[in-house]
Amino acid sequence: MDLPVEESRRRFGAARVARLATVSAQGQPHLVPVTFAARDDVVVVAVDHKPKRSAELRRLANIEATGWVSLLVDEYDEDWSRLWWVRADGTAQVLRAAADRAQPVRWLCEKYPQYAQRPPDGPVIRAEVVRWRGWAFSRG
Amino acid sequence: MDLPVEESRRRFGAARVARLATVSAQGQPHLVPVTFAARDDVVVVAVDHKPKRSAELRRLANIEATGWVSLLVDEYDEDWSRLWWVRADGTAQVLRAAADRAQPVRWLCEKYPQYAQRPPDGPVIRAEVVRWRGWAFSRG
Repeated sequence: MDLPVEESRRRFGAARVARLATVSAQGQPHLVPVTFAARDDVVVVAVDHKPKRSAELRRLANIEATGWVSLLVDEYDEDWSRLWWVRADGTAQVLRAAADRAQPVRWLCEKYPQYAQRPPDGPVIRAEVVRWRGWAFSRG
Repeated sequence: MDLPVEESRRRFGAARVARLATVSAQGQPHLVPVTFAARDDVVVVAVDHKPKRSAELRRLANIEATGWVSLLVDEYDEDWSRLWWVRADGTAQVLRAAADRAQPVRWLCEKYPQYAQRPPDGPVIRAEVVRWRGWAFSRG
């Protein structure tokens, strides 16, 4: 049922999409799917060229207001005995300076060919995971 | 880019899995994948037999503490021009009485054959959506 931390990190890092939850200053949750890269206990997400209303997004304002993030990777299957998920809870900051953004952007470009062609040029979210939690219906 | 509300509701309701974000009394986000049923602006989720540490879960405590929920459905594709997601933001309550649970459990059993065989017997989360937000990379 519970996945070991190493296995949780491995499954999380290999996933192509995660969901990022943040909390506003007023205490309301916000949720978006994100592409990301993970190394050890650091997870990075960048504002990229995928169409958005603005580069100044709710997710960034929330992180700057409250600092908490929760990131989730999960796999669905109609055979529920094959379900699993991994959650990474932690704190995050928004990086805007070119020097701070360089390494996260490099990680993202290494993971996604889509970014190698067009590196993300917006702010970067850098999360430090304080708790990994992994679950699988069965050990399989 | 933005999906109309009717299209957002349709895509959300047809999805097989969503992610549920809640917020603790201390302001920390919590995130889990959930099976769910949606009708109009109501979304229901039940605690079921999938293995858990306890039927008294963090998600229930958070809803009883703060009342806010955000639910997300998204589809990932390596062709990023095919990405889309729909988010449902609202408030929720936890239903524990048999009379209150009956209709949500019926909706869930109609949607999932897995539930028809074994109806969920735990508390039910009933969310009222106050805002639908749908996004697609392209109109496609």
